[in-house]
Amino acid sequence: MKDNQNKQPVTVIGLGMMGSALAQTFLKGGHPTTVWNRTAGKADALARLGADAAGTVAEAVAASPLVVICVLDYEAVNAILEEAGDHLEGRVIVNLTNGTPAQARQTAAWATGRRAEYLDGGIMAVPQMIGTSGAFVLYSGSLRTFQECQPTLELLGAAKYLGDDPGLAPLYDLALLSAMYGMFGGFLHAVAMVRSQQIQAEAFTSLAIPWLHAMSASLPRMAQAVDAGDHRTNVSSLYINQAGFENFIGTCQELGISAELMMPIRDLINRGVAEGYGADGLSRLAELIRKPISV
Amino acid sequence: MKDNQNKQPVTVIGLGMMGSALAQTFLKGGHPTTVWNRTAGKADALARLGADAAGTVAEAVAASPLVVICVLDYEAVNAILEEAGDHLEGRVIVNLTNGTPAQARQTAAWATGRRAEYLDGGIMAVPQMIGTSGAFVLYSGSLRTFQECQPTLELLGAAKYLGDDPGLAPLYDLALLSAMYGMFGGFLHAVAMVRSQQIQAEAFTSLAIPWLHAMSASLPRMAQAVDAGDHRTNVSSLYINQAGFENFIGTCQELGISAELMMPIRDLINRGVAEGYGADGLSRLAELIRKPISV
Repeated sequence: MKDNQNKQPVTVIGLGMMGSALAQTFLKGGHPTTVWNRTAGKADALARLGADAAGTVAEAVAASPLVVICVLDYEAVNAILEEAGDHLEGRVIVNLTNGTPAQARQTAAWATGRRAEYLDGGIMAVPQMIGTSGAFVLYSGSLRTFQECQPTLELLGAAKYLGDDPGLAPLYDLALLSAMYGMFGGFLHAVAMVRSQQIQAEAFTSLAIPWLHAMSASLPRMAQAVDAGDHRTNVSSLYINQAGFENFIGTCQELGISAELMMPIRDLINRGVAEGYGADGLSRLAELIRKPISV
Repeated sequence: MKDNQNKQPVTVIGLGMMGSALAQTFLKGGHPTTVWNRTAGKADALARLGADAAGTVAEAVAASPLVVICVLDYEAVNAILEEAGDHLEGRVIVNLTNGTPAQARQTAAWATGRRAEYLDGGIMAVPQMIGTSGAFVLYSGSLRTFQECQPTLELLGAAKYLGDDPGLAPLYDLALLSAMYGMFGGFLHAVAMVRSQQIQAEAFTSLAIPWLHAMSASLPRMAQAVDAGDHRTNVSSLYINQAGFENFIGTCQELGISAELMMPIRDLINRGVAEGYGADGLSRLAELIRKPISV
């Protein structure tokens, strides 16, 4: 395919569900694509789509100026980078493996020590969404490096650059996931409540989604309160939330469902009141979990 | 005011922040409004706005065909209805007090036994929002009674009728609140994470809100799975979520923040896997909390 000569060659290392989706998307976008996976056989389907299956990590890294890594954990990433040896020099490594901010910073320092460029990334999508308008991917590291790769990376999903510190992408990734888990947990509790009364969860959801969207309008105000360290409120104090929660827990008992997903926020509200913050708003809770009792 | 002669007279019993907001909204809407509160003095400000301050519950209930009650709890509601005695006959009681579905059903049965009409309601708004387009109020009980009062009740906020069973309004009310608390808890955890790295919560929120809206698109599918009792998934199994959570908890430790708001969903995912549901999606969790271990 002639027009592929203008497209940047890309290597994808790690061919699990996510890595395979990344490689397929580069292939569809017309990029010469080299793939490698530690377990043999995973490259076969991609080779049939036109990918070059490299025999070793060194070959895979040598094949393309842009190397995307998506494996199980940073232990696997670091082993792969070791194996690549001198071939790393001058390469751009985009590491989309899940990890912690400290792991990202450590691997970034190691890779730049080998004269590679390094970007860390967090994929905010399931494999099925890669290459669709619903996907976005967070990146952190050198801005110049990001800008050079951006046209290629945009194929995967909207590319959001967060800043120089390579730890930012995993930090934002995990923070967004925790917000999602909170929403899912609250929703699943709500669904258990209505189902216990033989009400269709789907009917409830048609009210719950607009309700959650409406309530999300109060998140910027909470964020401002945390940034300013000023948690005063004239809307919904911890006292008011505490009083409402007793009724809520009583209802869960009445319906015969466990309130386990709701207890930690109840306990945290109670702790806030006990520590003298009863007149503050819910934003105070973000301060309380930064002084951990337990993890 | 001549045109008030066409407006239905309304009585509001209970003049806390919420009850006062309700009474003010009826007054602004031109309804002849009678008010009563057990503690004297709370009616004064409303009387200056044109409300009639009744001396007793019996007088208050006698004054209007529509009686709205918004007090601390059902114990207070039931005491008020007892005091109203024979004046209840033919009245429409709209009880907007927070309570449980069983309390609503019990009070509805008692009131209809005294030949009153009874609607239970749940206010999905803070007092400051009453009478604005952002407020909505859930109602349950007789459809005919609801339809008769609807034009008056719409003044308070969009009126959503849920069905005959008077327990539906408190059930939906508390289910919607639990969804909201889940979202707030997850968001506050996320904010604590980013703040621990000196990142402005407000900047994070500009990514978090569109992310939560995008993720809310998966709630109808989860609801359908619970309704159907079919939790198979090809997107995000409990296994995958379990693996991701270890990284997440490690990051919280690294950042020095408590993961207490996230532990119950982690524990529930682990329980799901331990009980053999690892290949199921997150919707399975709604089944697990309907078989409570603890409350």
